[in-house]
This record gives sequence, C-alpha cells and structure tokens, in this order.
Amino acid sequence: MATRAPARAGPERRIDALATLRASGADVWVATASPAGVAHLIPLSYAWDGARVVLAMPPDSVTARNITSSGRARLGFGPTRDVVVVDGQLDGTLDADATAADSVAQLYADQADWDPRQETVDYVFVLLRPERILAWRESNELPGKLLMRDGEWIV
Amino acid sequence: MATRAPARAGPERRIDALATLRASGADVWVATASPAGVAHLIPLSYAWDGARVVLAMPPDSVTARNITSSGRARLGFGPTRDVVVVDGQLDGTLDADATAADSVAQLYADQADWDPRQETVDYVFVLLRPERILAWRESNELPGKLLMRDGEWIV
Repeated sequence: MATRAPARAGPERRIDALATLRASGADVWVATASPAGVAHLIPLSYAWDGARVVLAMPPDSVTARNITSSGRARLGFGPTRDVVVVDGQLDGTLDADATAADSVAQLYADQADWDPRQETVDYVFVLLRPERILAWRESNELPGKLLMRDGEWIV
Repeated sequence: MATRAPARAGPERRIDALATLRASGADVWVATASPAGVAHLIPLSYAWDGARVVLAMPPDSVTARNITSSGRARLGFGPTRDVVVVDGQLDGTLDADATAADSVAQLYADQADWDPRQETVDYVFVLLRPERILAWRESNELPGKLLMRDGEWIV
C-alpha cells in the first residue's frame, strides 16, 4: 500500500477509465449475487460500445442467472493497483445467434478477440450500463475515487 | 480467448495456486454479497498463514459487514488469464490492535507490506478458510479447474 505516484486529478482519471473500458483483449472480474446473498466472481472477456459494457456467457451460467435476477453486476477492471470499478445496471440481453445481436456480436468479436457465435454451446450478450464508476491506483487516490454517480460523470 | 500454452495437470496447478496464495505484496479481488443480494467487489492486500487467507479492513466497511453476515467471500487472485478463485468460509475476525492479533498482524505486515496497526482508523483481520479452489489460465484449462472441494485438495 506504499504510495508511488502523485494522485491523478478527476479529468485524468476519467480519461484513463474510458481507456480501460475500451481496452481490447482484456478480461474483467464480474461479481454478482444470488437472491439468497451468495457472491459469485469470474473473469470474462468484455467489450465497450461507448455506453455499455458487453459481456458474453452461457444463459444458464451462475453469472447470467444472478444478473438476470438482480438486474446488476459489479465489475473490476485493471490490475489491482490501477483499478476501475463499475456498478452496472442490466440494459438488456441478446441471444448471440439472433439477427438482432449482429452489431453487438461484431463489436464484441472485434474487441474481445473471441466470437461466441463460433461456439457450439449457446451464449447471450449481457449489456450493462454504468451507474457508478470508481477509479484509483494507490491509497493516496482513494479520495476522489468516485467518477460517475447515478449514470452521470462528476469529473 | 485464444489458447497459448498446453493445459497444466492437477498437481502443477496446485503448486502454482499455493504460490499465488503465498505471493507477497499482491492484491486480491474480494467479492461479497449483502443479505439483500447486492454484490460488492474491491481489491485488498492479503496474506496467507498456510491454511487461511488473511484480509484487513475497517469493521464498518461494506465488505466486512457482508462477510460477517454471510460468513463467506469469493476471492479472485492473479491476472485474469492466470486465475485462482477461492470460495472462502469465515474462520474468525480479530481486532488489529488486540494482543490476540499479534501473530496474525506480524504475518500480514510481512506479506502485505502494509501494517494496519499503524493506521489511525480501526481495522479488523478477517480469516477465510478455502472451501473450494479453482485455477485456470486459458479456456483449454477450464476442464480440470477444480483443485479443492469441501476444504480437501482433489489434485
């Protein structure tokens, strides 16, 4: 927890957070909870369509069931000393093989470097809209970590 | 999701997983859930006492309250393409400043390179005993990812 660099100002954190969301080929830690209050956590590939984080998963997976029932997920991006945390609200699901999913599927395949439409098992795309975004590196950046609240950037 | 290396056998994964748990100075993603089923996720420093993951946090934090009420947390270690996931059961908490915490506090300070006893706010150590451990790198390692079940190594 030793501090290694000066704290970034809000606008710089926002630029860095958006760069993380747009990163191609990376994974994100996806935390969800069951209605009974059991936490689940897995890393998944992701994409960013400019307003929503796009995930892909089998519709019968624990994560898909938890997101569908709770309407939300909490996402952890980046190495743990340069994190972006997103509270995301479910903004829709799309069957990967449906025509309506074509543009999302292409975006996802381009950014995640993996195409769920090629898999033999079923996948759904899950679209999550950020409600809150937090970003910090070391402990000196904990003040000012809140970048978005109620879906609105505040930096 | 392209596969880059041959899949490791179980014993090799167990050795690698233990090395990850023992890693000094690294952080872990800690996923918890509230009784109402809201997921929380934050990165925290950690230590390993040979049988339990040791975390430190303020007793009134969301993570502390969720772990105390649910008796569990799910932990994600490592970069997302070389992960160790642990379902941990609460095995006790210790006030960081209590004499009873001395050995845990020293272990934690040595491994996490940070001493909660030096902080002005209160901290508790949270001890989590692994019930399940999973480890995988790329998608070719998803088969065989289960290393521990019901607290027993199966590889």
